Amino acid sequence: MKYVHKSEEPAAGPLDRDAEGRLYDTRVRAAMTGFTRGGDTLALEAAAAARSAFHAVERLRTHGTQGRGLSSGALDVLIRLNAAGEAGAATPTDTADTTDTTGTTEMTSTSGAVGTSGLTVGELARAGGVSSRNVTGLVDTLEREGLARRLPDPRDRRAVLVAITPDGRAWLDAFRAPTERAMAAVFHGFSPDELAQLRHLCLRLVENQQRIEQYLDRPQQPDTKP
Amino acid sequence: MKYVHKSEEPAAGPLDRDAEGRLYDTRVRAAMTGFTRGGDTLALEAAAAARSAFHAVERLRTHGTQGRGLSSGALDVLIRLNAAGEAGAATPTDTADTTDTTGTTEMTSTSGAVGTSGLTVGELARAGGVSSRNVTGLVDTLEREGLARRLPDPRDRRAVLVAITPDGRAWLDAFRAPTERAMAAVFHGFSPDELAQLRHLCLRLVENQQRIEQYLDRPQQPDTKP
Repeated sequence: MKYVHKSEEPAAGPLDRDAEGRLYDTRVRAAMTGFTRGGDTLALEAAAAARSAFHAVERLRTHGTQGRGLSSGALDVLIRLNAAGEAGAATPTDTADTTDTTGTTEMTSTSGAVGTSGLTVGELARAGGVSSRNVTGLVDTLEREGLARRLPDPRDRRAVLVAITPDGRAWLDAFRAPTERAMAAVFHGFSPDELAQLRHLCLRLVENQQRIEQYLDRPQQPDTKP
Repeated sequence: MKYVHKSEEPAAGPLDRDAEGRLYDTRVRAAMTGFTRGGDTLALEAAAAARSAFHAVERLRTHGTQGRGLSSGALDVLIRLNAAGEAGAATPTDTADTTDTTGTTEMTSTSGAVGTSGLTVGELARAGGVSSRNVTGLVDTLEREGLARRLPDPRDRRAVLVAITPDGRAWLDAFRAPTERAMAAVFHGFSPDELAQLRHLCLRLVENQQRIEQYLDRPQQPDTKP
């Protein structure tokens, strides 16, 4: 059975503060204390808090995008198409280099020849961390709304690129101000240093997870030597 | 269209460090710089990092639970049933008090009379932040595996309680050690203070979101006075 995130539902339990004035989720602590039989719940609570933060942001994103007729997944795709298009128009690069770690040309993909910008469904899937089938559905939605279009890939007759349309850019322009308001609201009271600290702590989880998976995915050492 | 979290897919882009040595996601920064047209991306990056942290934890949770045949959603339900059962056995309380903020009796629900512990599907849904229909499916799974059972609610002939079985407790006992290893891996390098700091920063998002939604859900002020 697949666990499906329902962003319409409550994200977290009643919050309280510990002796140092730091927030904790009373319901999570009760459940985790039961699970660990009174052992240390700190890591489990931090993991649960990361989940709750995701749900909190997702609820506000959904709130913001649903009013404008797009799922948050479709919005992700549109933002990536927008970045690819603009970057591509400025500095055409080879899209094959998806392992680039500088971050500046990561999203870039252009035809080079005619200046057409766009990304393949596969590139969008990798960039968004979702399946190609999922991205195809999201692109269908964007195309139906006139915000993106499919066009032939000049580099490869069998391939199709997805590009943002002028209407798509206009949609994002209109979405920029409400997004800034939503971000200001959800990060109310955060200093720039706290924002960077939150980002850093969250991405340390990602760094650890990437290292673990690399280890898990590593082929087993053969028992015998040649 | 519903955006469905696919925990099998990559969670984040290549990471790099800023001038202060703090991690950032190069792909997210590129996309958000395009979206803000070169404006401040700090809040958007922090929000994206919270999402990525959730995905990272979820991938490891899924990895841990799938090997043992349970989705992470079913595991959540089992942990809550476990906490309710144990708390209920010790101190029977009235389940109606679901707004209790002490956290100690929050998950508790017992018949009082015969010492039977359990939670209704509605209570499980509220506690887990998912829909009742979702919880029903998860309880079906747990019951099929013999880890939980439905039983009549002695307080209400029309109601059904869900309770953890001895096999369910044994399952959790066996799951405790691998969970502790997974948590140790995903939080590798975190001091207790950093764990609490991550929890606190994440829950500040939740606090802000709860306040915003309270405001959004508030009924409009009438234009005229009586």
